[in-house]
Amino acid sequence: MKIDPLPRSAIDKFLRTQTLARIGCHAGGQIYIVPIAYAPENDEGPVTSVLVHSFEGQKVRMMRENPHVCLEVDEIASPSSWRTVVIDGEFEELRGEEAQQRALSTLAERLLPPSAASRVAQGDDPFRAVGEDTPAVLYRIRIHDASGRIATP
Amino acid sequence: MKIDPLPRSAIDKFLRTQTLARIGCHAGGQIYIVPIAYAPENDEGPVTSVLVHSFEGQKVRMMRENPHVCLEVDEIASPSSWRTVVIDGEFEELRGEEAQQRALSTLAERLLPPSAASRVAQGDDPFRAVGEDTPAVLYRIRIHDASGRIATP
Repeated sequence: MKIDPLPRSAIDKFLRTQTLARIGCHAGGQIYIVPIAYAPENDEGPVTSVLVHSFEGQKVRMMRENPHVCLEVDEIASPSSWRTVVIDGEFEELRGEEAQQRALSTLAERLLPPSAASRVAQGDDPFRAVGEDTPAVLYRIRIHDASGRIATP
Repeated sequence: MKIDPLPRSAIDKFLRTQTLARIGCHAGGQIYIVPIAYAPENDEGPVTSVLVHSFEGQKVRMMRENPHVCLEVDEIASPSSWRTVVIDGEFEELRGEEAQQRALSTLAERLLPPSAASRVAQGDDPFRAVGEDTPAVLYRIRIHDASGRIATP
């Protein structure tokens, strides 16, 4: 097995092909990791931020307390064939209807089938499950630093 | 989508069927997440600790500085069908040949094909790639607390 660093251009390409990440936050001496679905905020060039749709809960409370987070994205084919990207980032909650609608559109377009994504234009939140009454939270993770590694057999 | 807590018995069963986790550590104001392969240390009953084989590097340095870590294990079939377990744990480096050999055997038996696992008895480290000269590190994560959630469509 050979492990090489991923150049920034390969990191950006990888972040644009993936949709699943694990986000880690730290507050009150506790680390907490959860899987999230994300969408890069900008269409071209280096990925400078990603958008996330979530619900009120422990993770959001911790990120409000300490906005410094880690995002990890990987693709693991076997123990000797994998890619992993680790991002040093900052949580930024989206407030205001316009910013929230724009984020919802970008996320729906990237993560949902067209039929569900089209519901955003009608003022719907297609990520919300029927009967779900926990408030939704939309946020951005600003990417301050990203490093990646690739293993080949 | 319905989200329910996983009872401890279901958490233990899940930890015994999976081999891949993401580990998060925190030191010097930084959070760092990486994928790892693990093996439960005890065969039966509640999983009280897991074993990991790694190499010297940033993650190990951070865990020596702050042994308080988070382990996350998930199985994601779709955005509305997933299971995730989050563990609050403590890093404990294994020292001494006997403890290291025992850990290596447990890990090899769980993670490698029998041909590779049998090399442990011959004094080999089957996780070491040919030509790799970074020192190996064997450690235990003691599980202090574990919580889990299951989402069903």
